[in-house]
Amino acid sequence: MNKATTYPVSARGPADHDVRDQIVTAATEHFSRYGYEKTTVSDLAKAIGFSKAYIYKFFESKQAIGEMICANCLREIETEVSAAIAGADTPPEKLRRMFKAMTEASLRLFFQDRKLYEIAASAATERWQAVHAYEERIQKLLQDVLQEGRQTGDFERKTPLDETALAIYLVMRPYLNPLLLQHSFDYNKEAPAHLSSLVLRSLSP
Amino acid sequence: MNKATTYPVSARGPADHDVRDQIVTAATEHFSRYGYEKTTVSDLAKAIGFSKAYIYKFFESKQAIGEMICANCLREIETEVSAAIAGADTPPEKLRRMFKAMTEASLRLFFQDRKLYEIAASAATERWQAVHAYEERIQKLLQDVLQEGRQTGDFERKTPLDETALAIYLVMRPYLNPLLLQHSFDYNKEAPAHLSSLVLRSLSP
Repeated sequence: MNKATTYPVSARGPADHDVRDQIVTAATEHFSRYGYEKTTVSDLAKAIGFSKAYIYKFFESKQAIGEMICANCLREIETEVSAAIAGADTPPEKLRRMFKAMTEASLRLFFQDRKLYEIAASAATERWQAVHAYEERIQKLLQDVLQEGRQTGDFERKTPLDETALAIYLVMRPYLNPLLLQHSFDYNKEAPAHLSSLVLRSLSP
Repeated sequence: MNKATTYPVSARGPADHDVRDQIVTAATEHFSRYGYEKTTVSDLAKAIGFSKAYIYKFFESKQAIGEMICANCLREIETEVSAAIAGADTPPEKLRRMFKAMTEASLRLFFQDRKLYEIAASAATERWQAVHAYEERIQKLLQDVLQEGRQTGDFERKTPLDETALAIYLVMRPYLNPLLLQHSFDYNKEAPAHLSSLVLRSLSP
């Protein structure tokens, strides 16, 4: 068992990480501008100035690069959501800010600044691992806020916690899943506030 | 002013309605099977056995036929929703059944029986008049149930009615809009019950 924890030191060594990061950064830039679907690994290699073979040394496919970009993007959203929660004093306010931050960060990263929509859409359609993990962590964050609110007496305790959490997650889902978010542009500004208020009314003890 | 209400009796007379219905029925069948986007009015004419010119006598474009099919389809959903509401005794039960019937009828008409998804998607994307009117009528139905529940004392009265109605409509929207519904197949079975329960908790006096 001990043996498994001793990783062989590769000849390429720690620089691997740097090269991977470099590829991911350049690919993020390139996909943002030219789209993910239409770009091939050859296009990408040409644009970055690496050989295709060199890229394949670090990533087995375009999707593997896409998954890394997607994971970074979701981590960024999650960081903003966590910061929004941490900046609020009471559980109800945490819930409001969570909903708002989640919607705004998703809109910005998927559609505005980075236009990573195509990657996000593939990720959501094909249920990439990063998406699955992200959704679970968001649900965990939500459960934590709910639990805290039950302890402080801000939220009711009659409904089973997992039932409450699932229902609220279903209310939030159209604003965190890019496939749904793209059809809600008319509502994205006002929806988080209205839906948070409804959810908070549903949580009142 | 009186003159405007006296419509001239056309030479084609009342049979116009029958022919229009006949075209719409045949087109619904044809689009369900072969899709709306790819089918031209010529294809449709050939399939029905009418001349293209004859169809254009009754409908100015393919979209005009699509709009009629869409309006019929939405009327069908609305009839089912109204029947579901009428069959329930209390306002909370009406709300539950409304949500369930709306989701089930939308799924069946857009995706299963008729596969009218392409028409529904164009209608929702381009905001056809029939969709607009349908959404307004659904919101009106919702308001009626809410108002009734406020009168019976089942629902709280502190929140302004239009605010409550809008928030609940936003919760329901992913299950009545076909563009959103297609990305919620994993949740369509359980979501209406969970979301109705959450909404009813939010309405408790």
